[in-house]
Amino acid sequence: MTDGPIRLTHRAHARLRPADDARITGGFWAARRQTNAAVSIPQGPAKLEAAGNLANLRAAAGGTETAFAGDFPFQDSDVHKWLEAASWQLAHGPDRELEREVDRLIALVAAAQEPDGYLQTYYQVKHPERRWKELDWGHELYCAGHLIQAAVAHHRATGRTALLEVALRFAAHIEATFGEGRAVDAVCGHPEIETALMELYRETGERRWLDLAAYFVDLRGHGSLEAGFRRGGAPTPGSPYWQDQVPVREARTATGHAVRQLYLLAGAADLATETGEAELRDALARLWTVTAGTKTYLTGGVGARHEGEAFGDAYELPPDRAYAETCAAIASVQFSWRMALLTGEARYSDLIERTLYNGFLSGVGLDGEHWLYVNPLQVREEYEFRPGDHTARRTPWFRCACCPPNVMRLLASLPHYMASGDGTGLQLHQYAAGTYTAGGGTVTVAGDYPWVGRIAITVDEAPAGTWTLALRVPPWADRVRLDGRTLKRPDTGWLRLERAWSAGERVVLELPLEVRFTRPDPRVDAVRGTLALERGPLVYCLEQTDLPPGVRLDALTLDPAITPGAEHRPRLLGGVTVLTAGGRARAAGGREEGWPYGAEAPEPAGEPVELTAVPYYAWANRADGAMRVWVPRA
Amino acid sequence: MTDGPIRLTHRAHARLRPADDARITGGFWAARRQTNAAVSIPQGPAKLEAAGNLANLRAAAGGTETAFAGDFPFQDSDVHKWLEAASWQLAHGPDRELEREVDRLIALVAAAQEPDGYLQTYYQVKHPERRWKELDWGHELYCAGHLIQAAVAHHRATGRTALLEVALRFAAHIEATFGEGRAVDAVCGHPEIETALMELYRETGERRWLDLAAYFVDLRGHGSLEAGFRRGGAPTPGSPYWQDQVPVREARTATGHAVRQLYLLAGAADLATETGEAELRDALARLWTVTAGTKTYLTGGVGARHEGEAFGDAYELPPDRAYAETCAAIASVQFSWRMALLTGEARYSDLIERTLYNGFLSGVGLDGEHWLYVNPLQVREEYEFRPGDHTARRTPWFRCACCPPNVMRLLASLPHYMASGDGTGLQLHQYAAGTYTAGGGTVTVAGDYPWVGRIAITVDEAPAGTWTLALRVPPWADRVRLDGRTLKRPDTGWLRLERAWSAGERVVLELPLEVRFTRPDPRVDAVRGTLALERGPLVYCLEQTDLPPGVRLDALTLDPAITPGAEHRPRLLGGVTVLTAGGRARAAGGREEGWPYGAEAPEPAGEPVELTAVPYYAWANRADGAMRVWVPRA
Repeated sequence: MTDGPIRLTHRAHARLRPADDARITGGFWAARRQTNAAVSIPQGPAKLEAAGNLANLRAAAGGTETAFAGDFPFQDSDVHKWLEAASWQLAHGPDRELEREVDRLIALVAAAQEPDGYLQTYYQVKHPERRWKELDWGHELYCAGHLIQAAVAHHRATGRTALLEVALRFAAHIEATFGEGRAVDAVCGHPEIETALMELYRETGERRWLDLAAYFVDLRGHGSLEAGFRRGGAPTPGSPYWQDQVPVREARTATGHAVRQLYLLAGAADLATETGEAELRDALARLWTVTAGTKTYLTGGVGARHEGEAFGDAYELPPDRAYAETCAAIASVQFSWRMALLTGEARYSDLIERTLYNGFLSGVGLDGEHWLYVNPLQVREEYEFRPGDHTARRTPWFRCACCPPNVMRLLASLPHYMASGDGTGLQLHQYAAGTYTAGGGTVTVAGDYPWVGRIAITVDEAPAGTWTLALRVPPWADRVRLDGRTLKRPDTGWLRLERAWSAGERVVLELPLEVRFTRPDPRVDAVRGTLALERGPLVYCLEQTDLPPGVRLDALTLDPAITPGAEHRPRLLGGVTVLTAGGRARAAGGREEGWPYGAEAPEPAGEPVELTAVPYYAWANRADGAMRVWVPRA
Repeated sequence: MTDGPIRLTHRAHARLRPADDARITGGFWAARRQTNAAVSIPQGPAKLEAAGNLANLRAAAGGTETAFAGDFPFQDSDVHKWLEAASWQLAHGPDRELEREVDRLIALVAAAQEPDGYLQTYYQVKHPERRWKELDWGHELYCAGHLIQAAVAHHRATGRTALLEVALRFAAHIEATFGEGRAVDAVCGHPEIETALMELYRETGERRWLDLAAYFVDLRGHGSLEAGFRRGGAPTPGSPYWQDQVPVREARTATGHAVRQLYLLAGAADLATETGEAELRDALARLWTVTAGTKTYLTGGVGARHEGEAFGDAYELPPDRAYAETCAAIASVQFSWRMALLTGEARYSDLIERTLYNGFLSGVGLDGEHWLYVNPLQVREEYEFRPGDHTARRTPWFRCACCPPNVMRLLASLPHYMASGDGTGLQLHQYAAGTYTAGGGTVTVAGDYPWVGRIAITVDEAPAGTWTLALRVPPWADRVRLDGRTLKRPDTGWLRLERAWSAGERVVLELPLEVRFTRPDPRVDAVRGTLALERGPLVYCLEQTDLPPGVRLDALTLDPAITPGAEHRPRLLGGVTVLTAGGRARAAGGREEGWPYGAEAPEPAGEPVELTAVPYYAWANRADGAMRVWVPRA
């Protein structure tokens, strides 16, 4: 029995329920998960040791180390997220060495906890007098949230309670401290506690944790941070950065810090799911719609602004200064998955697929040990690296190392985003090769998606009588073939195969993988006059390293009149299908630096050139250099 | 006798010298200067009082006030910049009330000075123990620089020494404190002292101030801030934000915080001018070229990034998130003017003209009492105002109030950027109606430029024999008419009229003011597929408020096949020539928020619509709303 995030209670008002069992056994995602298990996760403790996170825990426990290491109050959360990732990994099979490391880190965390349940080394070691006093930037509830998430994962995966006990003590301390008329009546500047408490409610069955989550969701947007819980300094008071500018139910658009916004919405979705509150559900659906429609990159990435790591205005989606933090892509998947379960609508999993294959996966190098924090859609040849910059070059670890363990936990728990069940049967949201049990049946998915469109689904087990296998048809697939017959994509996105199934019966879905030229809405000003190449769920990009000598990426156009080709190259970038397309290259010479604005004149067309595009997720794995997703059209 | 910034020594290696006398007497700039004199400058002391700047001075002087007001260590510099502005204003004529205010503020500044000459209220009142210890963010030399600039202005304009004595005491303290082997051997995180010390050298004739300026210019880029003078915290150590990443002579491009970068380059240009050093001069010319060619907006604005108020990469020039700080436009004018004098090349004044009429002037409202800090080239209808935001709405004053007094000082000293002289005669850099004495002669400029292209120049006085009146021909004027004859624009940009002049002789220059459609270089990705409207030196923009009902600014295209018109409207926006152009408007309905990327399909052309464009500098003076300079082409 495997387990993963979100175990709905029986009272939950969700249309769909997570799979009872989900295992990815081969193909694209199995390879990434293997790298995660063999490289990324095992390296975690050494990275955390080198960055001082573990020393901070020892210092809080009263050891010989006494200085707080690291620049941020939330250093502990990296440890908690790693523990969550490792726990989900343990859920998929025993691993003695990993278990020992998990136990070692849990012991460090437990030893650091105060007798009253409090646990955040920054305030324990460095500023004990400021505990619960600077909620805007303190990240105390944020760290508590990640601790709780890790504890739930560890308990759910291993059945052991060592970390859960720590989390429950901290949660009880928070419960005793926060609330109307209690010592602290304010929210945390970084949401995360909300969804964590909802998971704690689900794991323990104790209603008090749902109530506490509801308190935090409801209090948000009422300016509680202004009432004496600000440490001062930037960002500006009242800024959407803190996610305290408007109550969730009244918000008209996603705004402010993208990760904070989406963690909050994920927590609110958990709450709506468990309470069945229609007003909150409808507000969340509205926010999701406006975010997907006006503030999301082609890659599924979100967060248009470096400043404040924030959502921009509607249609403000610059490709070069896209922030599109890896953590924000993960938060988007978390929010969308909760909405998929809550509503049963396929569109949420459409976006999850896009995000997983593009804006999320770009965050981790093919080697599993070099990371991107920022995931732009364009890097110019003139890109100026600045100290501390983590935009255009993969990095072994970050000063603010939120992304790497976040990637680890999503990859470790990925099977749980693939399928769901309901009273009618099983829904396949994604087509990772594997075996999924939900809705009373079990299916096995085979194929080499996303490289090959042919997906074979075997019903290993189904209840007697009528049972429905629902297959999500992505919106780019106008028509699919099912067992050789061509079908129009259903408007709901769900191809529902309702029949009496016999065990071992197989259906073959073929998704069309023609190369697509994609254009932006004219309101997305920053990429006007350009096209992108897509194939299946993959967004492609051009990298300087693939261009013929003498051709510059910023002097290229793409010609949609020339039919592109696709070719699988098993030895390139871990095995990818590359696209070839026709374009034009202007002469690389004559690059003056005169005034760059002038009289209307036709552009020189340039010489024909064959372009090779690689999947966006695989960029920046070979050499530094220019890259672009959106290419000016010829 | 009026006076203004930059009084070159006789040793200076400049090709051109500032005018001996310069007076703007009518027309466009006289009106702006009148508002500056009648509204902006007189309001200054009350604004500074309300913001606490004056209380800080009183507190430092040991009065009954004791708390430091304001968020920033550089609060004093607002006072100094106001004193500089008021002093340049006094240079243009007596004003008893203003003089009294100037004296009052000078007395406050003088009283705040420590016996050892030190003066920065933030460190005097709030953190005396940190004096000269956090040079990255402390702004001590920056404030000293503005104090010195103000003192030089006051002395030059009034002949009085009250403020100059304060400045000299502080300068001597700095000289005794800074240097190899002295207490402090490091630069300030915000350049400004360099150009100030050069002006002090010019004003006093004391070589020691040039030597101190040279020390700071030379030390920059050697990481001195890393050697114990950082207070910690963001930005990242070594960041170009502090302008300490590379020595000026080795820099390849303008980078980091735009104002800091350009103040530094202005100071270095002062140094190169007075020393005649060719290496520094050539480095500055190279930096100017690459900045103008790859990092400057059509408006002359600079600074593409909100994050760090910084230059972006080459060709990273987003219109919506343009930072283009008003102060950066001013710094650009200062740097360019020094280069114009140093080299005699017209291109520097080409950019000054563009910047003055557009990216600088947009910073102050037509009323002289509402300001823009950030000067974007596009604001969407969906613009989300955030607390503390100063992007899309004019504001009476700022928490960080660097821009308003900076605008005041440039407008007050504006005549000095209009003309220069050399051994051959007088150069007219700009065509503001007024009288200019330089190069041994005096000319009077008349006309209603920039609304009318006809400029009459009368030589009031010229030396006997051959004398040259040089007229700058802007690069957008392929051909001009001179006394009725059509002439091609000279390659140098200087139309040199070398002849024997008799007093009262007049020439008439006609600059062509046809409306121009301007396109961006294809490397300026963010505005691909768009056009801008220009007329003479003015960049135009569309504002939502000028559109017919039901037409949305983001659903418009501009059609260059339709010849635009120009019409002067004396009662609109203080009197402007508006442009009318033809375009197409897509239906405003059907604004879904579905996935904003889709299959290649032709855009609907939309219905014909007549568009009215207003000068960019005048935007945001009527109503909040959408604005754009670059309009998609039909």
